[in-house]
Amino acid sequence: MPIPTIIKVDLTRSPRENPALHNRYHPDIPPIAAVKPGKTFKVECVEWTGGQIKNDDSAEDILNVDLTQAHYLSGPIHVEGAEPGDYLEVEILEIQAYPGSEWGYTAIFDVNNGGGFLYDIFPRAAKTIWDFDGIYCTSRHIPGVKFAGLIHPGIIATAPSPKLLREWNKRESDLVSRDPNRVPPLAYLPYPETAHMGSLKGAKAMAAAKEAPRTIPPREHGGNVDIKNLSRGSKTWLPVYVPGANFSVGDLHFSIGDGELAFCGAIEMNGIITLRTKILKNGVSLHGNQRNPMCMPGPVETRFSKWLTFEGISVDDNGVQFHLDASLSFRQACLNAIQYFKRFGYTGEQCYMMLSAIPVEGRINAIVDVPNALCSLSVPTDVFDFDVLPTDGGHLCRVTLKPPKMDEEETPDPDVERRLKHKVFVKHDSFLKKSHL
Amino acid sequence: MPIPTIIKVDLTRSPRENPALHNRYHPDIPPIAAVKPGKTFKVECVEWTGGQIKNDDSAEDILNVDLTQAHYLSGPIHVEGAEPGDYLEVEILEIQAYPGSEWGYTAIFDVNNGGGFLYDIFPRAAKTIWDFDGIYCTSRHIPGVKFAGLIHPGIIATAPSPKLLREWNKRESDLVSRDPNRVPPLAYLPYPETAHMGSLKGAKAMAAAKEAPRTIPPREHGGNVDIKNLSRGSKTWLPVYVPGANFSVGDLHFSIGDGELAFCGAIEMNGIITLRTKILKNGVSLHGNQRNPMCMPGPVETRFSKWLTFEGISVDDNGVQFHLDASLSFRQACLNAIQYFKRFGYTGEQCYMMLSAIPVEGRINAIVDVPNALCSLSVPTDVFDFDVLPTDGGHLCRVTLKPPKMDEEETPDPDVERRLKHKVFVKHDSFLKKSHL
Amino acid sequence: MPIPTIIKVDLTRSPRENPALHNRYHPDIPPIAAVKPGKTFKVECVEWTGGQIKNDDSAEDILNVDLTQAHYLSGPIHVEGAEPGDYLEVEILEIQAYPGSEWGYTAIFDVNNGGGFLYDIFPRAAKTIWDFDGIYCTSRHIPGVKFAGLIHPGIIATAPSPKLLREWNKRESDLVSRDPNRVPPLAYLPYPETAHMGSLKGAKAMAAAKEAPRTIPPREHGGNVDIKNLSRGSKTWLPVYVPGANFSVGDLHFSIGDGELAFCGAIEMNGIITLRTKILKNGVSLHGNQRNPMCMPGPVETRFSKWLTFEGISVDDNGVQFHLDASLSFRQACLNAIQYFKRFGYTGEQCYMMLSAIPVEGRINAIVDVPNALCSLSVPTDVFDFDVLPTDGGHLCRVTLKPPKMDEEETPDPDVERRLKHKVFVKHDSFLKKSHL
Amino acid sequence: MPIPTIIKVDLTRSPRENPALHNRYHPDIPPIAAVKPGKTFKVECVEWTGGQIKNDDSAEDILNVDLTQAHYLSGPIHVEGAEPGDYLEVEILEIQAYPGSEWGYTAIFDVNNGGGFLYDIFPRAAKTIWDFDGIYCTSRHIPGVKFAGLIHPGIIATAPSPKLLREWNKRESDLVSRDPNRVPPLAYLPYPETAHMGSLKGAKAMAAAKEAPRTIPPREHGGNVDIKNLSRGSKTWLPVYVPGANFSVGDLHFSIGDGELAFCGAIEMNGIITLRTKILKNGVSLHGNQRNPMCMPGPVETRFSKWLTFEGISVDDNGVQFHLDASLSFRQACLNAIQYFKRFGYTGEQCYMMLSAIPVEGRINAIVDVPNALCSLSVPTDVFDFDVLPTDGGHLCRVTLKPPKMDEEETPDPDVERRLKHKVFVKHDSFLKKSHL
Repeated sequence: MPIPTIIKVDLTRSPRENPALHNRYHPDIPPIAAVKPGKTFKVECVEWTGGQIKNDDSAEDILNVDLTQAHYLSGPIHVEGAEPGDYLEVEILEIQAYPGSEWGYTAIFDVNNGGGFLYDIFPRAAKTIWDFDGIYCTSRHIPGVKFAGLIHPGIIATAPSPKLLREWNKRESDLVSRDPNRVPPLAYLPYPETAHMGSLKGAKAMAAAKEAPRTIPPREHGGNVDIKNLSRGSKTWLPVYVPGANFSVGDLHFSIGDGELAFCGAIEMNGIITLRTKILKNGVSLHGNQRNPMCMPGPVETRFSKWLTFEGISVDDNGVQFHLDASLSFRQACLNAIQYFKRFGYTGEQCYMMLSAIPVEGRINAIVDVPNALCSLSVPTDVFDFDVLPTDGGHLCRVTLKPPKMDEEETPDPDVERRLKHKVFVKHDSFLKKSHL
Repeated sequence: MPIPTIIKVDLTRSPRENPALHNRYHPDIPPIAAVKPGKTFKVECVEWTGGQIKNDDSAEDILNVDLTQAHYLSGPIHVEGAEPGDYLEVEILEIQAYPGSEWGYTAIFDVNNGGGFLYDIFPRAAKTIWDFDGIYCTSRHIPGVKFAGLIHPGIIATAPSPKLLREWNKRESDLVSRDPNRVPPLAYLPYPETAHMGSLKGAKAMAAAKEAPRTIPPREHGGNVDIKNLSRGSKTWLPVYVPGANFSVGDLHFSIGDGELAFCGAIEMNGIITLRTKILKNGVSLHGNQRNPMCMPGPVETRFSKWLTFEGISVDDNGVQFHLDASLSFRQACLNAIQYFKRFGYTGEQCYMMLSAIPVEGRINAIVDVPNALCSLSVPTDVFDFDVLPTDGGHLCRVTLKPPKMDEEETPDPDVERRLKHKVFVKHDSFLKKSHL
Repeated sequence: MPIPTIIKVDLTRSPRENPALHNRYHPDIPPIAAVKPGKTFKVECVEWTGGQIKNDDSAEDILNVDLTQAHYLSGPIHVEGAEPGDYLEVEILEIQAYPGSEWGYTAIFDVNNGGGFLYDIFPRAAKTIWDFDGIYCTSRHIPGVKFAGLIHPGIIATAPSPKLLREWNKRESDLVSRDPNRVPPLAYLPYPETAHMGSLKGAKAMAAAKEAPRTIPPREHGGNVDIKNLSRGSKTWLPVYVPGANFSVGDLHFSIGDGELAFCGAIEMNGIITLRTKILKNGVSLHGNQRNPMCMPGPVETRFSKWLTFEGISVDDNGVQFHLDASLSFRQACLNAIQYFKRFGYTGEQCYMMLSAIPVEGRINAIVDVPNALCSLSVPTDVFDFDVLPTDGGHLCRVTLKPPKMDEEETPDPDVERRLKHKVFVKHDSFLKKSHL
Repeated sequence: MPIPTIIKVDLTRSPRENPALHNRYHPDIPPIAAVKPGKTFKVECVEWTGGQIKNDDSAEDILNVDLTQAHYLSGPIHVEGAEPGDYLEVEILEIQAYPGSEWGYTAIFDVNNGGGFLYDIFPRAAKTIWDFDGIYCTSRHIPGVKFAGLIHPGIIATAPSPKLLREWNKRESDLVSRDPNRVPPLAYLPYPETAHMGSLKGAKAMAAAKEAPRTIPPREHGGNVDIKNLSRGSKTWLPVYVPGANFSVGDLHFSIGDGELAFCGAIEMNGIITLRTKILKNGVSLHGNQRNPMCMPGPVETRFSKWLTFEGISVDDNGVQFHLDASLSFRQACLNAIQYFKRFGYTGEQCYMMLSAIPVEGRINAIVDVPNALCSLSVPTDVFDFDVLPTDGGHLCRVTLKPPKMDEEETPDPDVERRLKHKVFVKHDSFLKKSHL
């Protein structure tokens, strides 16, 4: 008996026409499908922006992307018997690219339209297209790299209860209010204009949309956790907040590096995911009343034997010392890695996108050796088709790469400059400081 | 031809009598040994406190430990031909416990004497003794756990130049001055009273000690990086700042978890390390002018097939939203893990020390999904001799553990209470905030 | 641009009607498709018997299977530019079950219709159905087992030259002539009656069929190598014997154990494989003039941390000593493993099929310690959902399994007994001896 | 409390003077030490020939080695409470080279003094010295290779009962009697002249020596299993035949490849092993009455990501077809691998020794596809410091190696030729045939 597909998508039509998709969380969005625990089923998913990005060599679409539409998720799916307080176990049995759509993209968002972890250094939009060859991917925009995807959904999320939803809105608007004009913003608040509330229509939909949290951050219900190891064969345990759990899934990635440095740093794709659910009754209280989900990686991850590890400490670019700031330490490790790979002929932007997409490991190695947290970024060296290890004399094992024109060295862009001129551009250190005010 | 031991220690005597040990960094500390690149040699090392901690069931020694003496390092070692600007490659060929000293310890420091990552929750001193059985360790204080050590040196460090030393002192004292009375302190500044300057003696030693940076934090020269994968077979590349590199090594650990949650969270031990060096001339500029060292893990790490992953987001214990704060997200992941393992009968303190010592992975999974960074703590489930996976009904696979008396549930300790009463006790959130003022 | 499918199959029709399938090797079978090196393409494949086996609970179809029809392969495929003496590199980019056909089977052939490695002990036909749940499979006939498939093609083969074909026929008929009436036969010689010669028809097809080697054994051109690690991401290098290489692929397996003990011991399935070719000009002589293909496993194999290893030596069931006989040693290791797993409640036949299908490792550990070769069978213990490790007191960690009725203990079957009565039933030892006369 | 060393050796004295060593199996050899189950202890071991081989560049000592003295084992060790029918669990907690003796050797024995798996092709004595650098080894005789040792004891064995001993002698002398003059011999029978019976002396020792089985082959009690994965952290379960088990250990190897092709193919060394025992009462019958031991590899094996796999089938060097002969198939795979590596400039003898010593995997991939068994040899490519993968055009990634003079191409040696002339030299195919008469 073939495995049933309970949600279908049509890549040739707008995702907004599809009542089995939605781009906001809200308990009032009715389930579009129902499943029994223990039964296997498939769900089709569109890439997170709903088809705004094209397989071409221009980053124009990235520059102008409407992020308020993201993420288009498939669901909600009602699980028979799930009740608040239970754990919903979701097992990922298989994930594949959507047939005929064997490609994905990684992008740097413009600082004025989303930004990314290193937005102050890479403020301009850029795009990398990846072609899928079965389990492998390569890119015409980043030559010399080939690796097997650790395909996963960026997002699996149960529907929030009204109470939880209010908590989220409260705490996130409190944060934004600390620096409401910041670019990029400190958080993304409800934005009803582009909300797609699934099969909820009319006034009810508009009312819900006004308070419906955005899908950008991970939260207590799971959401955009972007865990690269949540791939084939993995399990995740999500708290249930409404009867039936009403969970959604989407934001499929062919691969991602820990950190997802470039915000749109994963390899975004359309695809199909095969799932099975199970309910652990009263699971939340029986497993320690954790505030966040648990998960368990699958058994078929790529085997790498060599990793090159870059380190960072809690001292900012200007030499100012911070206290056990893992975010800052990780930034330094990333900057070190980018510096390293640029010497092979890659531009900074290529390095930034590459390290966002390949399955790098981002670690918090030590969070106690005051005042420096030690974080690291480890790069599996086998993804390169040339030798990238340090060498005596620093000589390179192959001639300089010739990157395509689109990936020029990060020279000042007059347009970006102009737009930035009228703001006090927020340097990383001060941005971090603000975030804790 | 046997491998020569270039530095020896005597565990029956005070480390302060041994001129081949030192506990501060300074370019004036003369090298105590010299090696040629390409030659293999052994170095004996004492545990970081220099023998202050005993193999017994009382945490009294931890409560009263003199941290100003830490870390006793072996060296400095002069490497022939190394010059400023070079990379010193150090390959770790073997590490073992000191013969006859096949045990180690993990500890929670008292909040008034060092603290740790979760000092506000676990403010009292506690200690766990681990016994080594070849590659494995077990503890009478944490029953049910057995795992192979990923033995490594917490510290390998080249000597700083006078200029670099001044930068460190400047930036760290700037940090301390933001909250000079904080407990625990924001950083540890030079403290000549207990400095051991190796073979440097008299007035010169005293002068150097006054400006000699402490060994607690990792810095540009390596230092206390506490990378668990810097084990057998690994390599690290350290910038050279003085002729001969004058590097030191120490702080050996039988095992550590990413994060080293409990400050003294590794399994501290006496031991012997086998090393070989190589010089990459002008390596720093030839490999991208990174600000921090690089390293490469060895090929013989323990193979685990199952990991249970706990997640955390940038919302503090009181529900306040922070912005992409990886330290806070990691804290939440750790707290979730502790909650989970307590249900098997472990006390919170046992969980805290256990998760500090076993080779857990601490990851920064996503640092871009504003406002939440997603961090995780992954625990290899095979270190437990019972099944720790989530179960339907939450039932346990074995009867409740009976921990030894020393590891009581973290009830208020009158003495701690008294000491804490006279300070505004710094909650985690505010502490983090302060760190960025 | 979607990946093109160059060969299609229709599971509802007889494979004999499909000119893109064939079940014999011969240089005269015309290529049915052509590819350029470097281009990715898909090939659909039917399971090896061409649909003779049903997804039900009876082994009747196995008992009566027409093995002379096996294997139905997809091809031949012409590779532009390939010439005799080249290596054809075939990279396996992806393999999946045929959509809607998410199941497979493992079987024991009757001793009078194929047999298997342990045909003297398990002479009766038996069948196990496996259901695929994404990357995992389970069986209603072997409860308690679940594992991820290491999907692979049993067969990839270039077309033989006329000369090579004659060598094969000569040496194999020489072998058969040593014991022409042996049951099972020593080898399978050309059998034109059921040959399917692809698009070759009429007299030419009949002429070719009379001398066309069967597909059962692996040979110099690759063929039925049944290497479990020739899975996703792997590469194989096959010698080219005719212009265009004219290679074929088929016999897809969801999983197999080293040895494929039960002849039909893999999990046989219909499926789709994604391939890419490359030509290494004059590759055979440039890489050492090897007599057999080379290959390289892919990077995404299942990660297991625990293996239980069973050993065997070159002493047969009756205590007779042989000399460095790896086949016999491996038999003993397999028998030991079967004995071990029977104690959990499995029948011998269940054990035999289970160890054929799960990804066990069969090793030749020592082939020099006269007179005993030491071979072993290692079983990954994580495929069981209960603890199978040795225990003090031998107690089991779960109650006895209740296998379905079909899998009764191997009691004498009157019908088998009758059929066997009229032959001198060949015991393993003598069979092996005969093979070397 | 330091771990006690219960057996010591003195490398400067003859092993024959040490009553804690012995080189034959016999129940009358008294235990030289006793241990309690659950207690950890150390045992020192000499290399298998007892010091006959020197760390130099001549193979003279290999040519003239007295193999009748091998293997010098440490023991027997009495385990309190062990009784016939129990399983003795031996856990290997650590193994190291003997301090000051950080080197080992791999050798090809002369065909007239031991031979090896490929004795017809490599009939001359040769020797390779390996230097240990912590976990790694390298050789001045095989440049370009470096890898981490998977240190293990070739032999752990319980003492046989008188009955079992008689069975062994009977079956092995039966085998020898089939071709008593064969060179090398089909098996090694008791040889009292050089027997070292431990602390058993005088007439009793001589009587026992006359019937004491040699230590060359693995048997039901364990013995010379040469399993490369029986390394740090592993467990083995051995049947107990006499009260106290009286087990012995020795033949330590720094590394070995599956197959141990060159007989003395492991890296033989002096060393120290740390063990712990446990008794599973009535373990043999409770775990399925297996005829051979079980074991379980440890968790810290070297992580390799790339393997190059060579294949072989049951067709001999002259094109004669055999029936499912795994030994022959494995021979072909080995010959293919040797051919492949010779093109990098290694001599055949270097390849033969190299593939004996590095941790290659020897697999029985399929034992049912009549008439060909498919066996393979997989080589981890990361042990080479240059790229050994197949390349387009077959070009090499580095200039030809310059092997030391000792390792000349295998040209006919007049002396060997002379010695061989007077025997009917047994070619591999006929030898295999004889072995099954």
